[in-house]
Formats: sequence, C-alpha cells, structure tokens
Amino acid sequence: MTSLNIEFFGYFAAILTTAAFLPQLIKTLKTKKADDVSLITLIMFISGVGFWIIYGYEISSSPILIANLITFILNLFILISKLYFSKKY
Amino acid sequence: MTSLNIEFFGYFAAILTTAAFLPQLIKTLKTKKADDVSLITLIMFISGVGFWIIYGYEISSSPILIANLITFILNLFILISKLYFSKKY
Repeated sequence: MTSLNIEFFGYFAAILTTAAFLPQLIKTLKTKKADDVSLITLIMFISGVGFWIIYGYEISSSPILIANLITFILNLFILISKLYFSKKY
Repeated sequence: MTSLNIEFFGYFAAILTTAAFLPQLIKTLKTKKADDVSLITLIMFISGVGFWIIYGYEISSSPILIANLITFILNLFILISKLYFSKKY
C-alpha cells in the first residue's frame, strides 16, 4: 500500500472514532437519560483520552492532539448530561 | 519530558481507552439492556477502530494494532449484547 493510502486509513479512523460520540451525546440530550451507559467506562475513557492529549502534545502530533481534544470534550458532555439527568429525572 | 516518560503516557492512554469498554460490557450483560447506548455510536466507533487496525498493521505498530484489536472485540460484544437484549426483552 502506498504511504498516501496508509495515511488515509489513519485520518479516516481518527475522524470515525472521534465523530462516533456525537450521536451518543445527541441521543442522551434527546431521551434525557443515559442510565445504561457505564459511568466507570466514561471516567476511564475520558482519563485515557486525557493521557492521549498529553502524549500527542509531547510528540507534537496534531492529528492525535486534535482528535483526542474533540473526543475529550464530547465524552465530557456525555458524562455531565448523564449525571445531570440521573439526578433530575 | 524524557522519551521514556512520553512513552509511558502513550501506553497508559492506550490501556485506559481500551480497558474502559470492559465495564460497559459487564454492565450490559448484568442489566440485560443497553437501550441508552447509541447504536450509531457503536457502529461508527467499531468501523473507526477497524480502520485503526488496518493503519496499525500497515505502519507495523504493535501498540496501535493490539489496543485496537481488543477495543474492536469488546465493542463488538457490546453491540451484539445490545441487539440481543433489545429483541429478547
């Protein structure tokens, strides 16, 4: 496979695994509940993504940094929504 | 930061963002439901992780390959469980 094709797979992977969390956030905001979403999963995942951000910054990788910053923000909003709705409803 | 410390952040990030999906799988199997978990998120995420596997293989990166293979399997089981329980109960 050519180097350009390989890079394409990397960027496509990054876009998909980042954008994937938008439907979860929209679903949570619409249904006003996320009881079935694991709290431990969210906390572990957000922490891990935080370490990816540090790693991306340290090795000066913009794709890793940007993709993980967006993933971090989306999952933080999912976590906040889950906690907010579990108290309110 | 030394190169060793930077690598530590990368490995720690990979372990956390991979292992994070185990609590979700356990929760789904215990509660026998995952209605609040977005189907679109799961499909997009699993597809994206599939592309990470191809990317990791092509650039010969064992950490990317191994971490994403485990993430792929865990999320596939979450997806199968979600679909199975949504039909059965």
